[in-house]
Amino acid sequence: MQNWLIKQSQINPDKIALITTAEQWTFAQLTEKVLQTAGQLTTLLGELPRQTRIAVLVKNDSTGYLVILALQQLGLVPLLLNWRLSRIELQRQLKIGQPRALIVDDNLATQLKVDVKVKLISLKQMTTSKAQTIVPVPEFLPDQLASIMFTSGTTGQPHGVKQTFQNHFYSAVGSAFNLGLDTNELWLCALPIFHISGLSIMMRSLIYGMGILLVQHFSAVEVTQQLQDYPVTLMSVVPQMLQRLLKVYPAKGYQQHFRGFLLGGGPIDAATLKTCQQKNLPVVQSYGMTETCSQVVALNFTEAERHLGSVGKPLFPIQVRLAAKPIGEIQLKGPNLAAGYLDDSHGFSQKMTADGWFKTGDIGRFDQTGFLYICGRKDEMLISGGENIFPQEIEAVYQQFSSIQEIAVIGVNDEKWGQVPWAFYSTQKPINYQLLLSFGRQHLAHYKVPQQFIWVDHLPRTASHKISRSKLRELAKKMKS
Amino acid sequence: MQNWLIKQSQINPDKIALITTAEQWTFAQLTEKVLQTAGQLTTLLGELPRQTRIAVLVKNDSTGYLVILALQQLGLVPLLLNWRLSRIELQRQLKIGQPRALIVDDNLATQLKVDVKVKLISLKQMTTSKAQTIVPVPEFLPDQLASIMFTSGTTGQPHGVKQTFQNHFYSAVGSAFNLGLDTNELWLCALPIFHISGLSIMMRSLIYGMGILLVQHFSAVEVTQQLQDYPVTLMSVVPQMLQRLLKVYPAKGYQQHFRGFLLGGGPIDAATLKTCQQKNLPVVQSYGMTETCSQVVALNFTEAERHLGSVGKPLFPIQVRLAAKPIGEIQLKGPNLAAGYLDDSHGFSQKMTADGWFKTGDIGRFDQTGFLYICGRKDEMLISGGENIFPQEIEAVYQQFSSIQEIAVIGVNDEKWGQVPWAFYSTQKPINYQLLLSFGRQHLAHYKVPQQFIWVDHLPRTASHKISRSKLRELAKKMKS
Repeated sequence: MQNWLIKQSQINPDKIALITTAEQWTFAQLTEKVLQTAGQLTTLLGELPRQTRIAVLVKNDSTGYLVILALQQLGLVPLLLNWRLSRIELQRQLKIGQPRALIVDDNLATQLKVDVKVKLISLKQMTTSKAQTIVPVPEFLPDQLASIMFTSGTTGQPHGVKQTFQNHFYSAVGSAFNLGLDTNELWLCALPIFHISGLSIMMRSLIYGMGILLVQHFSAVEVTQQLQDYPVTLMSVVPQMLQRLLKVYPAKGYQQHFRGFLLGGGPIDAATLKTCQQKNLPVVQSYGMTETCSQVVALNFTEAERHLGSVGKPLFPIQVRLAAKPIGEIQLKGPNLAAGYLDDSHGFSQKMTADGWFKTGDIGRFDQTGFLYICGRKDEMLISGGENIFPQEIEAVYQQFSSIQEIAVIGVNDEKWGQVPWAFYSTQKPINYQLLLSFGRQHLAHYKVPQQFIWVDHLPRTASHKISRSKLRELAKKMKS
Repeated sequence: MQNWLIKQSQINPDKIALITTAEQWTFAQLTEKVLQTAGQLTTLLGELPRQTRIAVLVKNDSTGYLVILALQQLGLVPLLLNWRLSRIELQRQLKIGQPRALIVDDNLATQLKVDVKVKLISLKQMTTSKAQTIVPVPEFLPDQLASIMFTSGTTGQPHGVKQTFQNHFYSAVGSAFNLGLDTNELWLCALPIFHISGLSIMMRSLIYGMGILLVQHFSAVEVTQQLQDYPVTLMSVVPQMLQRLLKVYPAKGYQQHFRGFLLGGGPIDAATLKTCQQKNLPVVQSYGMTETCSQVVALNFTEAERHLGSVGKPLFPIQVRLAAKPIGEIQLKGPNLAAGYLDDSHGFSQKMTADGWFKTGDIGRFDQTGFLYICGRKDEMLISGGENIFPQEIEAVYQQFSSIQEIAVIGVNDEKWGQVPWAFYSTQKPINYQLLLSFGRQHLAHYKVPQQFIWVDHLPRTASHKISRSKLRELAKKMKS
């Protein structure tokens, strides 16, 4: 297929492509800026072979946006780094990625002291360079890499995932067939563009000819204002963002064009979903990962209300099966599936079955009508007295305990039972142990009720804002010793 | 990708798939009926190798619909025949197609006396047969044939076009990215399902999970009633249908869900488009052919009004170029492009350029903003005194002559000029020659004004309702001799 950006500049030149607090660009304007950026990068980088990797450490702003798109125009591969990572983590990813250069936001450059020999280009350097005239790649070839990004690494080390143009294309198609496609779609992106949750919105913009409202830092108040000021149709959220938005939901509501939230990044509690229903705010739950280039399973607007707790059905291009019935590891097949890991091709192929399905590491079950429910991570599952226990199930129950803000359950070794569940929770004040115990016994089989309830100020999270269970395990170890 | 019908029966079982005057089926119900039909066909046909061709001569009704889908479920290829064809034409297509059997509507069987040794299966036979339990094909493979249908053959003999699942998929994607996709899309199909205009709606239904309102015979009054009774969102039309619908457009309008008409099959006159604008009826002009599995160039809703007469811009998966600038043959590239001709692979490869572009045989030009205008068929163009003349241009001018119902211009050999244009037109009464001449001279260069205006009762048309210029040429020859 033809280079997507150039295509949009031809077929939708006057359509809004990008809105930030400072700028508003049509596809014609965006393309001009991107090509200029590509010209500046060529001045600094020289001519490089196609598919050369260039690391990118940028924020959710227009310049970061331009850099990612400009690299694609040159046939280079943006290796997207998370600016929330520690120096050691960044160092490891640069070592694995072996990029030819690192393009870095000036505000992030100061805190960056990586011990890897890599050419550094600051955004200031870039924007003040003279732009060479460049010839953008004529086509985006299906098997070429469009992006590389690291998994969040909730368990184990992050992997660099090789995402092709085909991956992004089918991901966008699957999403459109499920959510429908407004001819004036405007998608609010407050999720990081170095993650698949954010980057997939950028790629959909190029594929659909759709506008993006790009938000640098998520603030519930500011985003709420934007949802009133702009004709936003869709917004991607993680559960926490949705909860915070609901707290400041305005009496007038959002603009009438708003179609709903696409919810990813973990399960949502029933209370939040109910509030959304009361406010007539459609929420589409979804399930996906970096290796599948965003959502692969999702609810749709019609069924979102009737199947609380389910992540929905496999999107059109995707097939899903379970390794065992009625509960088993979720396996996937489809053109969204990434080309592999940068650092560990063996690690990726180990996740493939002999007949070509990807083992997600998540345990799921289907209900009788084909809706998928996620039970939890295979490696987070604990076995207590021979019974399988999924922390998520216990967490979902305790999220209904009104004063609990957040809770995470892990398995802790136990001489008698093999493993037992422990819970870490945060509230304003610690809660009486007996209260928590009896609440659990009302709602859960006794062996699922945590043996310990540990009150913490807040739960440790990874750079991608997921709860870090490995840190909780360390904490539990210390407490036992 | 997974078998599309089975996929929809899993992800959208309760969504409306098909509405006819007699039936209303969800995807779950449609799938059950299709698999039953496939079982009945297996009883009659036996087990056949995948991709075996089965000819189909059916009407736009639910049984015809089931037959086409059932063959795909068995991995067989429906060879779609046009019931408006003459016996000789049918015979030729069956000879080329070499189908293993011919499934024929009982009402069409009586008039069918083809002299080709082919097993005949009537729909009555089929529906009264016992259904074997069959296993539908698990996947629709991109390069396998989904359908074969013959070109309309306005010039020369019709070719059997091999359309793959990939062709249909990208065609549907390109259409959705241009028109947007309503989550409750209901597409009214009054065009024949043995043509790409109708079949492409069927395929979109399987790909989007979209409903179809299937109309057996187009009647402006009945369709208008349906547009008031059902929440139709889109309807495909050819110019004549649109004109007839406008004549009976109701004061109340159609249901509020109606998004617009997709117009194909030739140019529309400015007056009709203006009426649509006045009535606030969006019309999207488009350009496509059997070889590209439906539209490849189209306007969108926003720009439809501002670019009267243009067929729009190349859809997302498609690239378009001209063999010469500013006016030249339109050439296409993209995944919509059919796998070739059944009868004449040489004929198809002759239409491909050395660098892989398909030569459409249509002459076009782009305006400065990239909108494509069709000048006419390359082989309909006439050269008069060294000047290129496109019949369409002349026809468009005379269509503004109020009493003219239809007009067609052809080139006729001339000793002095090489060729000169002749016009055939139909009106209630013949029009004064001088009147026609002076009208032409007001609007056209003198060499473009037809030398003869021949009054006919109606213009000869092909089975696909296109004006048959070859028959007009024969008529002109007779008149000259």
